[in-house]
Amino acid sequence: MSSTENESTAADATRDVRMRGFARRTTVEQTLAWIDRETRPCNPQRISIDAAHQRVLATDIVSAVDVPGFDRAMMDGYAMRAEDTVGATPYNRLPLMVIGQALPGEAFTQPVLSGQTVRIMTGAPLPPGADAVLPVERVEVEGDHIYAHDAVPQQKHVGVRGEDIRSGDAVLSRGRCLRPQDVGVLSSIGHAEVEVVRSPQVRIIVTGNELLPAGSLPSGHRICDANGPMLTSLVARDGGTPRHPGIVPDDPDSILAAMRSDVDVVLVSGGSSVGQEDHAPVLLAQHGELAIHGIAMRPSSPAGMGRLASRLVFLLPGNPVSCLAAYDFFAGRAIRRMAGRPTDWPYPKICLPLRRKLVSTVGRVDYARVRIDDDAIEPLAISGASLLSTTTRADGFVVIPADSEGFAAGTPVTVFCFDRLLR
Amino acid sequence: MSSTENESTAADATRDVRMRGFARRTTVEQTLAWIDRETRPCNPQRISIDAAHQRVLATDIVSAVDVPGFDRAMMDGYAMRAEDTVGATPYNRLPLMVIGQALPGEAFTQPVLSGQTVRIMTGAPLPPGADAVLPVERVEVEGDHIYAHDAVPQQKHVGVRGEDIRSGDAVLSRGRCLRPQDVGVLSSIGHAEVEVVRSPQVRIIVTGNELLPAGSLPSGHRICDANGPMLTSLVARDGGTPRHPGIVPDDPDSILAAMRSDVDVVLVSGGSSVGQEDHAPVLLAQHGELAIHGIAMRPSSPAGMGRLASRLVFLLPGNPVSCLAAYDFFAGRAIRRMAGRPTDWPYPKICLPLRRKLVSTVGRVDYARVRIDDDAIEPLAISGASLLSTTTRADGFVVIPADSEGFAAGTPVTVFCFDRLLR
Repeated sequence: MSSTENESTAADATRDVRMRGFARRTTVEQTLAWIDRETRPCNPQRISIDAAHQRVLATDIVSAVDVPGFDRAMMDGYAMRAEDTVGATPYNRLPLMVIGQALPGEAFTQPVLSGQTVRIMTGAPLPPGADAVLPVERVEVEGDHIYAHDAVPQQKHVGVRGEDIRSGDAVLSRGRCLRPQDVGVLSSIGHAEVEVVRSPQVRIIVTGNELLPAGSLPSGHRICDANGPMLTSLVARDGGTPRHPGIVPDDPDSILAAMRSDVDVVLVSGGSSVGQEDHAPVLLAQHGELAIHGIAMRPSSPAGMGRLASRLVFLLPGNPVSCLAAYDFFAGRAIRRMAGRPTDWPYPKICLPLRRKLVSTVGRVDYARVRIDDDAIEPLAISGASLLSTTTRADGFVVIPADSEGFAAGTPVTVFCFDRLLR
Repeated sequence: MSSTENESTAADATRDVRMRGFARRTTVEQTLAWIDRETRPCNPQRISIDAAHQRVLATDIVSAVDVPGFDRAMMDGYAMRAEDTVGATPYNRLPLMVIGQALPGEAFTQPVLSGQTVRIMTGAPLPPGADAVLPVERVEVEGDHIYAHDAVPQQKHVGVRGEDIRSGDAVLSRGRCLRPQDVGVLSSIGHAEVEVVRSPQVRIIVTGNELLPAGSLPSGHRICDANGPMLTSLVARDGGTPRHPGIVPDDPDSILAAMRSDVDVVLVSGGSSVGQEDHAPVLLAQHGELAIHGIAMRPSSPAGMGRLASRLVFLLPGNPVSCLAAYDFFAGRAIRRMAGRPTDWPYPKICLPLRRKLVSTVGRVDYARVRIDDDAIEPLAISGASLLSTTTRADGFVVIPADSEGFAAGTPVTVFCFDRLLR
């Protein structure tokens, strides 16, 4: 494609985006459907079980071994043939000859014959011939003999081979988000590594000439980047691997180069709208596909998304509350799905009555920050997309659906809580 | 202290522990009270905000700056004196002379006089003299003039200095578990680093001559270490930093040397009971304080705890379900507290009716693994401390208090869920 063609395509796209503006907005529902169509779990990767906690299994796990792989003692005591203890009581003590000792990891391998016994510790392999364990409290020791005070049935105090897991057992299923005990079970059946869904690689592009890098002291007419550190935390929370090497200069070449990073997902924060300085939508329309631009929600209406070759690209507004809401509604869902996780928000839900009415506009989804106070919901702010502190003062948020004008005071509604509520 | 004294102390301690056995067990309640007395949050450490998500603030955060640090435009449009627009309508267009342009990060510094205006982009600093922004849709541009179609009041479409955060505002409180947006706010007020509660360092000691290191294929009379990988995941989950360099030989010198690691907490898995091969309780009694040994609960009754110099030491049974339960009841609580987190279990709770009765013994706390099935609780196994697979098949557990004989079928009881339940 010649440079002239490139420029004319760019100009057309620009004109198209700018003319359309946001007169027509995509609904949240349509946007979620697009994301679900465009995403699927990443291909598997093998990782060490040391790093497997909270990762998502990419395959079913079937055990190739029995756990334990041998019959073993479940008490400290003496192993013998159960039939040798028949009739034993404290008044009818039956003698057995101690022929050795079995410790965990140190088997006694000689067969136990009638009239013989082996001292055995919890976890030690049962010697051949023995089929029960008499606990140490039920015997009397005299020299190289014991006297059994009690009868034991076969298998008593014996953990049988495969009682935890049998060879061929389906142990864990594909899609499982691994718990600490799952990692333990994987180890116990001999897995040093496991196939999990690869973590989607996510390039975070923060643009804006007014921005100072995170960690600067704000000064003059510049503000510090809040979205970069926030998005980095959000991506990691959702199972993605964030890359945020620093603020990207607010020019088309720099932004396009960053958008072409070798990643699965690109998040562009800032310059997502239809203004003169909003390069990202134009670049996406020109070089890839700008599938959605302008969404019927508040805040975050200037958000957009599309594809650049194999990458999924999300255009997030620069205002930090809009950025958070657009991430949570859209980009986070895609990243969780690509990481193999459930698409639901990772926020605990609680249903409580509203202390005051919460108003909205039909046709638009609202993301309303709220506090929880005395078992009621106190709306904090429905506007103020630039005020990130509203999301640190809030306990969570309420979603007002597109078909609702809001809720009257007293209505029980669901709060998605930023933290688990322990109070 | 001479070697002879050392040995006699060890012998006494051994005898003492072995004679006492577990005839007398400490209640779970007393054990929790001991932990709460013996633990407090670790001293603060400074870390980069890049690593601050989910860490716990060690200090209150008060902003030293206004955010934003200047008045700014909240719309793309034109900045002017609001009084210049009084009476403007589409039928009474009022002319203003465009004297320049303000972009984000690129202020227009010349004062705006009456009859003048400055083209301004969202986020750009308001020029001196201007006090309102007229959105671009409300003007007509003709050469170096615009015609206002609408009147705007003062401050309209202006974000005022400090509207997000004012200098002196208490932004976040000590003890806060940092959210993604908190990290954003910290960045926006100029913090590159933040003081958080130091992560407790936790040495995991896995002993047992029958154990093969995690990742081996189980063979012969040996089993693979499940507890090491499981405890590593649990410690990290609870905000600790796990160290598990490998299986420790099951002899007193090796175990004592490992217990003396430079850490805050020591977890010993295996050899916690009163048998001949149970070295850890004896070592702790001899060289430190064995405060609790034997707890009235099932599983995990052989668990113990104490101090070795400044280290808190937990003796966890080697049976994996006991190990998990003892970790969750005791060690995890201590680690969460030392990491500055709430002591509560990080398990979501749900209250549902029991499908079958669940029996227990008065005087003992029971940790019963259960499944959730069709909105009812199905008990899985109350015994089987060696069967880790019961905790991977379970959805969670029910705690039967010491004063209860259990619950009848149909009783609504609380399940602590291993995962958030999305179904």
